[in-house]
Amino acid sequence: MQDVDYVSGRTRIYGIVGHPIEQVRSPEMFSASFKARGADAILLPFHVLPADFDRVVPALMLMPNLDGLIFTIPFKQQAMALADAIGPNARIVGAINALARQAGGGWKGEIFDGIGCVEGFRQAGLSFAGKRVMLIGAGGAGSAIGVAIAHEGPTSVRVFDPDTGRAQDLIRRIGLVDPAIAVSYAEPHCEDTDILLNASPVGMLDDARMPISIDRFDPTLVVFDAIVKPEMTPLLQLAAQSGCRFIQGRQMMLGQISKMTDYFGIVAPPA
Amino acid sequence: MQDVDYVSGRTRIYGIVGHPIEQVRSPEMFSASFKARGADAILLPFHVLPADFDRVVPALMLMPNLDGLIFTIPFKQQAMALADAIGPNARIVGAINALARQAGGGWKGEIFDGIGCVEGFRQAGLSFAGKRVMLIGAGGAGSAIGVAIAHEGPTSVRVFDPDTGRAQDLIRRIGLVDPAIAVSYAEPHCEDTDILLNASPVGMLDDARMPISIDRFDPTLVVFDAIVKPEMTPLLQLAAQSGCRFIQGRQMMLGQISKMTDYFGIVAPPA
Repeated sequence: MQDVDYVSGRTRIYGIVGHPIEQVRSPEMFSASFKARGADAILLPFHVLPADFDRVVPALMLMPNLDGLIFTIPFKQQAMALADAIGPNARIVGAINALARQAGGGWKGEIFDGIGCVEGFRQAGLSFAGKRVMLIGAGGAGSAIGVAIAHEGPTSVRVFDPDTGRAQDLIRRIGLVDPAIAVSYAEPHCEDTDILLNASPVGMLDDARMPISIDRFDPTLVVFDAIVKPEMTPLLQLAAQSGCRFIQGRQMMLGQISKMTDYFGIVAPPA
Repeated sequence: MQDVDYVSGRTRIYGIVGHPIEQVRSPEMFSASFKARGADAILLPFHVLPADFDRVVPALMLMPNLDGLIFTIPFKQQAMALADAIGPNARIVGAINALARQAGGGWKGEIFDGIGCVEGFRQAGLSFAGKRVMLIGAGGAGSAIGVAIAHEGPTSVRVFDPDTGRAQDLIRRIGLVDPAIAVSYAEPHCEDTDILLNASPVGMLDDARMPISIDRFDPTLVVFDAIVKPEMTPLLQLAAQSGCRFIQGRQMMLGQISKMTDYFGIVAPPA
């Protein structure tokens, strides 16, 4: 029996809290991110039943070698009450997906679902500043994306969701972030649009549909899809065929992991 | 960034609970034991402050993907209250170092410090049945060893500790396990002795002393030392020079890991 080299008494602990838990990918992806930065840290699946949340999670936070938690379904709203300091996205969205121990004591919370999208664009050399955006989908992911890009100074954001109530709710939140943005409800379109964002589930897995009815994009349009599987959704396939620049769900996911690893206080070694 | 292969959403969680925690070796050793048996399971350091024990540990036990806990200093006595079923050693010693989720519900607790000694002997083809034993040291380790070997049917056990009160306490406990054992207090000696056990700290690290004053052992004597560092204590060096069979602290430790991994329900794959 050989010793393992990935955990010791000194290893710093992080966890993802959810119900169910077996499907989450954060343990391997964040543990890899920590390892890539040379940190002796690991992220584990913490399965917490909804009825036990208020008893278990504050107790986990009492362990001095636990430095951060990720929250997934169904806990993102409920977790916000655990944070002593709330980030600018979480304040508007009303939910957190990351809780980090602060150096000075206490815990800070933020939601990175949308920040990951902005970071994915940034790593591709693209920005939302001064751009006209069409956002399809105002659910959990769409709301977080809408709020995050609203911090980046777009000229206009048009929001579509078949549930017009939640579209209007997101429109209101975007206005709270930056009243200078021209934000309105619109059916999916790409006229007078610089960036098309899909945050709806249309095109996921075996779904061959497009979230917008169109045969060809203008090649100057930038197209994003939040869907991770498949990597090339029908929307992104059309973007590629049209000669557009496009950003995949995986790039948003990697952007989110990078920003959350920063937030957890795990810094990259000097190059 | 490459994914790591040692943790996922399906990984079963185990922990060692202690204060302090950084010095513990269980995370790497048990995680290696689990891996050697092909289990998707990991053991982590859970640092719990004494004032938080009653709040944190019962909360950890509410997580459905946490299957077992190890307890180290200063929690072995306090942890016993968490077990629904108490093993035969723990019942006599009054402490547990392992708590395992039972298939039928609830948790079982046992102390393996002494069981590891018995297992180390068993793996070396040696038994305590019908043997005359001299045990030096009646502290935490000595008590656990005394109680564990008392379950193995020795003819006699003589106990020494400079604290005669705790030696008498262990003598009483051994009598509770098996009234047929001739158990008494004695200064360290090896006349009329088949097995000499050192469970005192004498000989640890740079301590060049022997726990018994002697120049040479009868080669039929079996000598054991619970000390892990150094691997060859002065006592074991003399045993080797005398041509005796001897069992090292490391063998006890590996025996304990093996028996605790069994207890945690992680079975070896078929050979």
